Amino acid sequence: MRTLYELCGAEPDRLFSAYSWRARLTLGYKGLAFESRPTPFKQIPKALEGIHKTVPVLVDGERTVTESFDICRYLETTYADTPTVFGGDGGVENAALIDNLIVTGLYPTISRMIILDIHNQLAPEDATYFRQSREKRFGMSLEDVQRGRDKEREKFAAFLKPYQRRLAEAPFLGGESLLFADIVLAASFCWAKATSSYDTMNGDEVLQAWFDRVLATCNQAQALKLAT
Amino acid sequence: MRTLYELCGAEPDRLFSAYSWRARLTLGYKGLAFESRPTPFKQIPKALEGIHKTVPVLVDGERTVTESFDICRYLETTYADTPTVFGGDGGVENAALIDNLIVTGLYPTISRMIILDIHNQLAPEDATYFRQSREKRFGMSLEDVQRGRDKEREKFAAFLKPYQRRLAEAPFLGGESLLFADIVLAASFCWAKATSSYDTMNGDEVLQAWFDRVLATCNQAQALKLAT
Repeated sequence: MRTLYELCGAEPDRLFSAYSWRARLTLGYKGLAFESRPTPFKQIPKALEGIHKTVPVLVDGERTVTESFDICRYLETTYADTPTVFGGDGGVENAALIDNLIVTGLYPTISRMIILDIHNQLAPEDATYFRQSREKRFGMSLEDVQRGRDKEREKFAAFLKPYQRRLAEAPFLGGESLLFADIVLAASFCWAKATSSYDTMNGDEVLQAWFDRVLATCNQAQALKLAT
Repeated sequence: MRTLYELCGAEPDRLFSAYSWRARLTLGYKGLAFESRPTPFKQIPKALEGIHKTVPVLVDGERTVTESFDICRYLETTYADTPTVFGGDGGVENAALIDNLIVTGLYPTISRMIILDIHNQLAPEDATYFRQSREKRFGMSLEDVQRGRDKEREKFAAFLKPYQRRLAEAPFLGGESLLFADIVLAASFCWAKATSSYDTMNGDEVLQAWFDRVLATCNQAQALKLAT
């Protein structure tokens, strides 16, 4: 039996971690069934017997795998007869670069647009921890960070441009079929959309259609609880 | 016999086009000998009998291939026993995305740092064409564009961060060996370094060491005439 520990908000079906979503989308794309263990921040040590401090964690029979990238690699090599998310050895290396490009380029900007909304989705003890740690990091209140989000969205649009260009040429960032780049970018929007009704995509229909396509291809459209 | 038409400045060995460098680096990496035909902007139609308006153009026996990406793909499939720059089918798709990320993310910023310096490396008739077309595009004089380059370099540093992170983990963007991402990014620095002594890398030693490594691996260290 396969079990995925993934982050959740106050509601157990409020799955919102971009990193957990990478594992979930990859499992779904490969058609690998799993049982979900939604886990709030503060419950992680207890749920994982103090051994692991972050999720996602995948327990697959005797094997326990942590870190989203490693989970995806593990699934790729272990289930070699399922659809590929890396497309060969060079694909893994490119994926590591694209991972860096997306996380470094987009995540700081996304988080500034939705940080207070994330907070408001969390269980009370998580919310307290989240506010303290994030306000320390940003050096200001979550309210003040999020207040500037229209300006952040303009910056975000500039970062999205190369992805949009690519999607004007092909249905997926991976071309005719989905690759890890699609997983990573779509997981980022799962994070945003599960926690906030703010339109980070700014009405871009091509991007929205691609996002819906990735969720459907990974059979996870039902699993995303949109924030309203 | 293989012939590569590539862009040059007033001096024929001032090879400065990022797109031409992609073809050159790929040929070099694959150990494929070629004869270079350095061609200034305004000589392209004449050199290529009016058929092609841009370089690089690769003539390989009976085959003529244009566009840098297509040239690299052509070399990859035609010379399948040479070292790969794509690393499999998924690699080609990822390369197309990375190409977009680098061109869209970095090129506008690089060009603003060196635009006048490029102009000053060109043959007189090219320089006239270049100034007119670029000043129209920027809506200001080349002098005014380049005057703001210290600020552009700060923006450039933010764009470079994910690449630097990756190079802190591995000798190449492609991991243990070079991939197309390395070719594209290194070619961008060939463009900058052939035309300008301005330190776009801002003294970053990891980046410089990687750049030297790519040139050496592609056997092209001698071919790059640094601007002084």
